[in-house]
Amino acid sequence: MRILVVNPNTTAAMTDKIGAAAAAAASSGTEIVAVNPDFGPPSIEGYFDEAFSVPGLIDAICKARGIDAYVIACFDDTGLDAARCITDAPVIGIGEAAFHMATLLAGRFSVVTTLPRSVPAIEHNLARYGLASRCARVRAANVPVLNLEAVGSDAHQRISDEIRLAIRDDRAEAIVLGCAGMADLASALSHAHDVPVLDGVVCAVKLAESLVALGLKTSKSGGYAMPRAKRYSGGFARFSPAGNNDRASDGELAPPATNGT
Amino acid sequence: MRILVVNPNTTAAMTDKIGAAAAAAASSGTEIVAVNPDFGPPSIEGYFDEAFSVPGLIDAICKARGIDAYVIACFDDTGLDAARCITDAPVIGIGEAAFHMATLLAGRFSVVTTLPRSVPAIEHNLARYGLASRCARVRAANVPVLNLEAVGSDAHQRISDEIRLAIRDDRAEAIVLGCAGMADLASALSHAHDVPVLDGVVCAVKLAESLVALGLKTSKSGGYAMPRAKRYSGGFARFSPAGNNDRASDGELAPPATNGT
Amino acid sequence: MRILVVNPNTTAAMTDKIGAAAAAAASSGTEIVAVNPDFGPPSIEGYFDEAFSVPGLIDAICKARGIDAYVIACFDDTGLDAARCITDAPVIGIGEAAFHMATLLAGRFSVVTTLPRSVPAIEHNLARYGLASRCARVRAANVPVLNLEAVGSDAHQRISDEIRLAIRDDRAEAIVLGCAGMADLASALSHAHDVPVLDGVVCAVKLAESLVALGLKTSKSGGYAMPRAKRYSGGFARFSPAGNNDRASDGELAPPATNGT
Amino acid sequence: MRILVVNPNTTAAMTDKIGAAAAAAASSGTEIVAVNPDFGPPSIEGYFDEAFSVPGLIDAICKARGIDAYVIACFDDTGLDAARCITDAPVIGIGEAAFHMATLLAGRFSVVTTLPRSVPAIEHNLARYGLASRCARVRAANVPVLNLEAVGSDAHQRISDEIRLAIRDDRAEAIVLGCAGMADLASALSHAHDVPVLDGVVCAVKLAESLVALGLKTSKSGGYAMPRAKRYSGGFARFSPAGNNDRASDGELAPPATNGT
Amino acid sequence: MRILVVNPNTTAAMTDKIGAAAAAAASSGTEIVAVNPDFGPPSIEGYFDEAFSVPGLIDAICKARGIDAYVIACFDDTGLDAARCITDAPVIGIGEAAFHMATLLAGRFSVVTTLPRSVPAIEHNLARYGLASRCARVRAANVPVLNLEAVGSDAHQRISDEIRLAIRDDRAEAIVLGCAGMADLASALSHAHDVPVLDGVVCAVKLAESLVALGLKTSKSGGYAMPRAKRYSGGFARFSPAGNNDRASDGELAPPATNGT
Amino acid sequence: MRILVVNPNTTAAMTDKIGAAAAAAASSGTEIVAVNPDFGPPSIEGYFDEAFSVPGLIDAICKARGIDAYVIACFDDTGLDAARCITDAPVIGIGEAAFHMATLLAGRFSVVTTLPRSVPAIEHNLARYGLASRCARVRAANVPVLNLEAVGSDAHQRISDEIRLAIRDDRAEAIVLGCAGMADLASALSHAHDVPVLDGVVCAVKLAESLVALGLKTSKSGGYAMPRAKRYSGGFARFSPAGNNDRASDGELAPPATNGT
Repeated sequence: MRILVVNPNTTAAMTDKIGAAAAAAASSGTEIVAVNPDFGPPSIEGYFDEAFSVPGLIDAICKARGIDAYVIACFDDTGLDAARCITDAPVIGIGEAAFHMATLLAGRFSVVTTLPRSVPAIEHNLARYGLASRCARVRAANVPVLNLEAVGSDAHQRISDEIRLAIRDDRAEAIVLGCAGMADLASALSHAHDVPVLDGVVCAVKLAESLVALGLKTSKSGGYAMPRAKRYSGGFARFSPAGNNDRASDGELAPPATNGT
Repeated sequence: MRILVVNPNTTAAMTDKIGAAAAAAASSGTEIVAVNPDFGPPSIEGYFDEAFSVPGLIDAICKARGIDAYVIACFDDTGLDAARCITDAPVIGIGEAAFHMATLLAGRFSVVTTLPRSVPAIEHNLARYGLASRCARVRAANVPVLNLEAVGSDAHQRISDEIRLAIRDDRAEAIVLGCAGMADLASALSHAHDVPVLDGVVCAVKLAESLVALGLKTSKSGGYAMPRAKRYSGGFARFSPAGNNDRASDGELAPPATNGT
Repeated sequence: MRILVVNPNTTAAMTDKIGAAAAAAASSGTEIVAVNPDFGPPSIEGYFDEAFSVPGLIDAICKARGIDAYVIACFDDTGLDAARCITDAPVIGIGEAAFHMATLLAGRFSVVTTLPRSVPAIEHNLARYGLASRCARVRAANVPVLNLEAVGSDAHQRISDEIRLAIRDDRAEAIVLGCAGMADLASALSHAHDVPVLDGVVCAVKLAESLVALGLKTSKSGGYAMPRAKRYSGGFARFSPAGNNDRASDGELAPPATNGT
Repeated sequence: MRILVVNPNTTAAMTDKIGAAAAAAASSGTEIVAVNPDFGPPSIEGYFDEAFSVPGLIDAICKARGIDAYVIACFDDTGLDAARCITDAPVIGIGEAAFHMATLLAGRFSVVTTLPRSVPAIEHNLARYGLASRCARVRAANVPVLNLEAVGSDAHQRISDEIRLAIRDDRAEAIVLGCAGMADLASALSHAHDVPVLDGVVCAVKLAESLVALGLKTSKSGGYAMPRAKRYSGGFARFSPAGNNDRASDGELAPPATNGT
Repeated sequence: MRILVVNPNTTAAMTDKIGAAAAAAASSGTEIVAVNPDFGPPSIEGYFDEAFSVPGLIDAICKARGIDAYVIACFDDTGLDAARCITDAPVIGIGEAAFHMATLLAGRFSVVTTLPRSVPAIEHNLARYGLASRCARVRAANVPVLNLEAVGSDAHQRISDEIRLAIRDDRAEAIVLGCAGMADLASALSHAHDVPVLDGVVCAVKLAESLVALGLKTSKSGGYAMPRAKRYSGGFARFSPAGNNDRASDGELAPPATNGT
Repeated sequence: MRILVVNPNTTAAMTDKIGAAAAAAASSGTEIVAVNPDFGPPSIEGYFDEAFSVPGLIDAICKARGIDAYVIACFDDTGLDAARCITDAPVIGIGEAAFHMATLLAGRFSVVTTLPRSVPAIEHNLARYGLASRCARVRAANVPVLNLEAVGSDAHQRISDEIRLAIRDDRAEAIVLGCAGMADLASALSHAHDVPVLDGVVCAVKLAESLVALGLKTSKSGGYAMPRAKRYSGGFARFSPAGNNDRASDGELAPPATNGT
């Protein structure tokens, strides 16, 4: 099977790191295709960056062919809902993937993310997913995203310090790393702190493989129904949902999806 | 004061209707400027349309000058978080405006929106805002957004029927109309059903006026901190957050906003 | 329009301060009438004082004439439910007003109130209103209500200290001042701490003006139905709900209200 | 021991019925003293009646002597918080009593009360107590309180009909009767419907006896601290909290209680 | 009446202490029969011990005769659901008993239990019972269960230290002792800390007496329906639910119970 | 890798069906070992059966050798917490597996289980896992577990009928089948109703494979710490936790596990 892993920011070095982590976690029969948008923000740090990464993310999804499942490799699960609307293939966000996996290993977990401004969006996601009660606290190590790539950064130490506090003060039994750029740190941190430390990229790859193997698809009844056919204007015209509007999904007309799968 | 009311879809007729409702509700000293994006979806029906309306919405906000507060006139509160990041002027979504106002008049309310596919996004917003416990049920009248504008549509009757069910079956004490395009129906429906019926556009205008009058501004500490300076690539380059990154908002570097206020 | 601002305690100096704050916030066409009960507690500090302030509050409401909306100027929103039953004009509590306004400016807020004994009532209100998830913490500055009026009090410093802790430890992005007697402190504290600091009196005035301007009224269906006609005995006889009981509000007999509006 | 059962409305016939039920449930060593206020509403149907019953309720409590525990015999638990402030003897509301007892017998229960207008207050209490998740639904049989006393009323049949619906539609495993005036119906309804049917009056008596027997008292730390000494004005002067303010309960000065125990 | 108090661990000394506490709290007409299983763990510290204590607990219940109510004297309320299925007599866990009683005396309480590993199970119970919002925090004094019995143990001091922290840091207004083996400490700790300190054993005895006195029984509709008749194999054969399966409890066939009451 | 799938009831035919479903879902490198206890209930229908299935389940786990992960194939996730205490290999319940997977495909799901008496336990699990907000309703098709195996049973039709109601009345976007014995029905029901229909057995197998592949293990910090060493008496002596008590997991002594992995 082929899984498209989309890094929704435009930093190719980060896409490479994510792709390598994903490939290392994939089963032998799985091909990982790691891409990033042609346009948009080089890193996603807060709501504003998020908004401008979604069109590029959707564009990357629409361009791909022969994909069995999609992974969105930003811990905010940026654009997850929109992406689910245009395909019935599974679409997994790395944030949700890590949260769900953590609950299978521990009664409560804490999240360690990059910057304080990203904390509210993660908390909102936890509440929406229903898992807020399982998360003791979302912590910020105060590390900008691209510093994770920088030589000589103290990012690793800051993250490790927050993990120590999470175990001691939050009574966290497991740790979720709150940024795709931390994918390479999980194993060392788990050994250092003797609790499970989860990276969302590899969790999402395994969940995507699992859903494809089981033949399970995104529901087209309700919020993830195919977009109704209409003409978008201006630069977004090429994203206009196509198709006729006569399929009665959830009691309304709905067009076929525009993606190529 | 000047309030920019942004209809985030591109249908000018709907912008005109929204603008007229807003102007009718505004105080004598308030100037309403109603605009819509130059590009994007002609109506917002679900997560996919939402995603493609946000850049145009932000564009419309950035182009405006001398604005004291912003109203986002889509009931899903599309792009609200992103817009709040680029200004410290108040930004009010019509969904949240109607929800908050309704709780001041009634113990519990129901929402009547257009299509079933819009129900989950509204439910998510209610949960995020904390007001899910005050909402008895989100109902869909099964009316496409643009049918609200159509001559001879049975939209009004369908909405009225759902209101009747909400009062009888949900024990709703007030009704929130779940689409900016219903702004002209509130008064007649309130008289017909003898409960408060709230339209979000006028609620948002009054809340925006109130916050401006009180000198209250969006917090720049936390999730709504100004975006960090970075270069967006491709078609979104002009939206790149500017400024230096040395202001220590919530413990991190943050640039000035890019908007013109 | 005329708004009756009722300070439910009997301390006239506090009524004056509240009235001045309300008048300063009111629009040019709004007349603020600030009153307090003839009888009852001189300050409201906990559940017992609350109970004995409500009859005087209702009395003050019933005596007023030509009122378009009511503001209850105690942060506990004392008597709010009872007051809403006897009029279809809007009735706004200053606690709820500040909470709702704060959520439009910030993801999460903390409350700084006077005495520890007032904390539980405020927490109960937050839970009832549905906004507990938006409030990081209710803090007490350990200042008795009437000390806020005292010359040479360290009240201002204590409140400022708690705000500092709220921003640092609660991750509060905005602050709500938890007592009507703090109405004059909001602006200075906001500048000092660089986050929005909200006083409920002025928030309530603007919300009341807004609802009146929009023609929105308290729902008479459900919990705020007009009281059923009956004879109260003893000193409360003059508060007996009048009217016939044959109007079928929410499936039962309900009398006209006794208030003079 | 002596338990004061206060019916907070002024209808002596209802006090008699409540007193008889309480006495029948009391242990051999327990003396039940059933009283009602000298002044106030003859029945409590909604928030407005509630507010005017509390001073009479407190008056009745203050007049009593040698009381070991108090039961407030209105299902809304009217005045419960205020009453707890003036004594360290246990004070039990019949609503809370029935809710807690029901959870010991069944996974979920429904409430059947009198009028629709009483439903919101009961729902608020359930949320405050934390037991909302255990209550499937609060139903109104649409019976005015004093009709429960009327000869030839169809009240019993209406209540029984609602119980049947609660079992069938709410999946209720137990029923709580939502009015002190239903105290005599519980046993027959339990037999008729083959599920536990709980009356709050007898539940509250047993809980009060239990707490007294165990020597457990109301906490004076926090919300139920003794009222601070101050002079109430006008007709409420006699309720002024006495005592010095130098006891450092929860970090503040607090006076001795005014009650006679 | 006869109440069977089952200590679900096999340590007879602890059973004696629990039985003595129960007997001291019982009314004059109540006979306390304190037993423990013949087989299973000597103390219950975590989920694994819990699982192996339930068959012995059920065995002890089935062997008893002429019992009016059951108390399960482990703070985790081990086996409570299973026990409720085989009798319509009340079955009370000491954990739930203490939680419910505490809410009648204080707005919020903290729990002080033995070991950290027991905290999650207690938190789960609080959430299930609906009382999580009333509990400020579950604290562990880090004392193994059987050390409570040891001469010269510092257990009492550790527990007292945690209570002090709970009052100061959790704003706890009452304390619940989280282990049956602490039954003898409640009174001294309450005096030392001047807040109510509750032991579950005596609370459960009084609740059991109350329910029996009121003739209230466990609902057999829903989750506590009598077990369906079937043959258990191996060592558990003697626990096989007997009876015919033709009684239509909650829409299905259900057999008479196997217990001896 | 080797995954032990334990059917916690003793019905070998059901174990065979579960094992076949698990093997069909497993990856090529995965060996499925399907077992059931030697002793205990032949089906698990409610809390009483649950309690008597756990020792046999633990016994089956302890007897197995060379296992990389465990699946507990009862939809109530019977014994899940106890099993997690004795191994650091992943242990997955089929109920939780299906719930988590469903949330990746749909905004809300309903559960269709066998008998009404099983509904409360499933609801409790959903609340504990944090996913109650994602589940619209738990429905019972009123089919005894072993009827699922019976020739000529109308079980399939009843389940299909409930699914239809769940889609129509609960607005369910996906369906979770609430019994291991329904594992063979998912595909046909999904096609018939055009929404995802999830069986927990196959979901759990894929999650277990995923966790093993990622090297993730059950946290030994907190509730799933290894059981403390102690001697169980009687028939359970062979389950006594072994090892020394000197490892300071979560601040206390903890022994090595007793299982053979």
